[in-house]
Amino acid sequence: MSRRLDPAPPPGAAGSPHPEKESIIPAAVHAYIATAADQPLVPTTIERRELGPNDVSIDIAFAGICHSDIHTARGEWGRTAYPVVPGHEIAGVVGAVGPEVTKYKVGDRVGVGCFVDSCRECDACLAGEEQHCVKGMTGTYNAVGRDGQPTHGGYSTAIVVDENYVCGIPEGIGLDEAAPLLCAGITLYSPLKHWKAGPGTKVAIIGLGGLGHVGVKIAHALGAEVTVLSQSLKKLEDGLRLGADHYYATSDPETFTKLRNEFDLIINTVSANLPIKKYLGLLALNGTLVELGLPEHPIEVPAFALTFNRRSFAGSNIGGIAETQEMLEFCAEHGIGAEIEVISADQINEAYERVVASDVRYRFVIDTATLTGA
Amino acid sequence: MSRRLDPAPPPGAAGSPHPEKESIIPAAVHAYIATAADQPLVPTTIERRELGPNDVSIDIAFAGICHSDIHTARGEWGRTAYPVVPGHEIAGVVGAVGPEVTKYKVGDRVGVGCFVDSCRECDACLAGEEQHCVKGMTGTYNAVGRDGQPTHGGYSTAIVVDENYVCGIPEGIGLDEAAPLLCAGITLYSPLKHWKAGPGTKVAIIGLGGLGHVGVKIAHALGAEVTVLSQSLKKLEDGLRLGADHYYATSDPETFTKLRNEFDLIINTVSANLPIKKYLGLLALNGTLVELGLPEHPIEVPAFALTFNRRSFAGSNIGGIAETQEMLEFCAEHGIGAEIEVISADQINEAYERVVASDVRYRFVIDTATLTGA
Repeated sequence: MSRRLDPAPPPGAAGSPHPEKESIIPAAVHAYIATAADQPLVPTTIERRELGPNDVSIDIAFAGICHSDIHTARGEWGRTAYPVVPGHEIAGVVGAVGPEVTKYKVGDRVGVGCFVDSCRECDACLAGEEQHCVKGMTGTYNAVGRDGQPTHGGYSTAIVVDENYVCGIPEGIGLDEAAPLLCAGITLYSPLKHWKAGPGTKVAIIGLGGLGHVGVKIAHALGAEVTVLSQSLKKLEDGLRLGADHYYATSDPETFTKLRNEFDLIINTVSANLPIKKYLGLLALNGTLVELGLPEHPIEVPAFALTFNRRSFAGSNIGGIAETQEMLEFCAEHGIGAEIEVISADQINEAYERVVASDVRYRFVIDTATLTGA
Repeated sequence: MSRRLDPAPPPGAAGSPHPEKESIIPAAVHAYIATAADQPLVPTTIERRELGPNDVSIDIAFAGICHSDIHTARGEWGRTAYPVVPGHEIAGVVGAVGPEVTKYKVGDRVGVGCFVDSCRECDACLAGEEQHCVKGMTGTYNAVGRDGQPTHGGYSTAIVVDENYVCGIPEGIGLDEAAPLLCAGITLYSPLKHWKAGPGTKVAIIGLGGLGHVGVKIAHALGAEVTVLSQSLKKLEDGLRLGADHYYATSDPETFTKLRNEFDLIINTVSANLPIKKYLGLLALNGTLVELGLPEHPIEVPAFALTFNRRSFAGSNIGGIAETQEMLEFCAEHGIGAEIEVISADQINEAYERVVASDVRYRFVIDTATLTGA
């Protein structure tokens, strides 16, 4: 599934005082764009900003399709500024660097996740938790950058990002299977680490999808005893192959009796409104259930489900840049990549339908070489 | 406010092989009892069990009135087995000990809290968190003991309890002001310790009542920066005197704007259904809001209120025996007792009305010397 890209030719003319500033980035790059909530994505060309002193231009090789892309493209979160190019699971190779860039050089394998900037001054930013920037991180798409221009994401052939919001992708992982780690990977890694999944801990992952399958791999690699809680046993074999020790169907009421007070940590990757009370009952003393998605309705939590066993119901949202880098290194070390189905750009709309129907094992990744413009 | 009881005379006749077994405990002790949901409590006499090998008989000096007593006496939790003697904030002096008792001797100042037994075998019991016993702790009242008999609480002149469920009360605290610590004190101390309130942390206490006022004292003594969040500013002066650094009215919408992302730990002592979403917004990065009460309806939690700042919504329920002992020593060391109004037994029903009307600063404590039987 992996494809290595050859490093791009070095940018700029030799002898120029700031060769990188005369970037080879085309004023316009190929992309797939959402123009309205009820319209399919279409090929287009978009402008990328001129390379600033701390910017890296990345020739994108692969871009994962996250369910958030679909919510945004279809206006389901009610705050889409059209037109917008989705994509925040970006893997590629550095094509050019600004004159003050120190972390990356042309040819480096790199990735970009869900955000491309933040205030850099608040407590969260200073703590390396830029995703919780009090002024709001700048989303990789559907946001507005410091230059006042709308941001556009990874369904495109190149992107320009400040080096501080770029991660290196170690040699051990293919760029295609690395791409989803930039969102799905860190989304699971961060809570697993924060709540100390490891040897001697029992971890349950609710939902074996794009997020959940990476969670199983990472939790297993961290040394935890891993249980999948899935609606049915349809993906049982996959679950065990990916590293789960146990697999239960949540459609079976017995599951909730048998596993009562069982888990130290439960990670809920399902965005629909679940009967959380039942799942809280599965937490052991001091256990935590972590919500990753944003279900449509408020979640109903009876207090007794928390007071018994001193349980916590928590939320987590991706991770900071330093932790994303740490995650990529951990995944490379443990041979962890996402399980992917590589598609061409003209399959994006069909892939959206299949994601909504949960018909993907486990992540679609767009081969951006197939983006050829309008 | 403090009254020291003289040690009771030593029990049993000298020369008896098991002197303590021939206990001086009267078969019947004076008590105040609830007979039905809609009836006032009335004086009565109840039987206490014969002293077992590991039992301690306690001559009760003071018993606090906890709102749970009222809920139980009035059948508001729907599971009251009448008749029942309430009271789980018990302070007194050891009057007799069983032959195998090693922790206490006659004359020791001791206390009993919300439970008098547990399975002693489950992970929670073995971890010293008996309040989370998987088989269910045995409540100090309205439960059934190992002997198959209903348990009766502290509104009485004596109680017999296994020594492992008795705590020592250090000399530094009066028995009257110590009594409420056995429930209110540990209910606050345990989450404050578990979530690491201390120097450099910002702690908010919602509600300045029986629980909250002890929470302010303990949080302050732990070195935290303490804020009271109360409906109005009526108790402002009290709050500051008890150790709060700041005091805000939650009836003022400005409070929720000004304190956004402010606290590491918020302890909610209010049992009514609050708009928890607004309070979650006050949590800083990695902050936790701990629910102590059991509001009537499930609590509505929007996921985004948790995912931003990696917030937790948790529950806590009293504390284990070892931690209760630790709390009593901490309180003695820091001169912390509950703020109390000592009443006589014939004022119990009136005190119930005043508790329901929040007309007490801050805990009623029954002087059990005034219990004289039916």
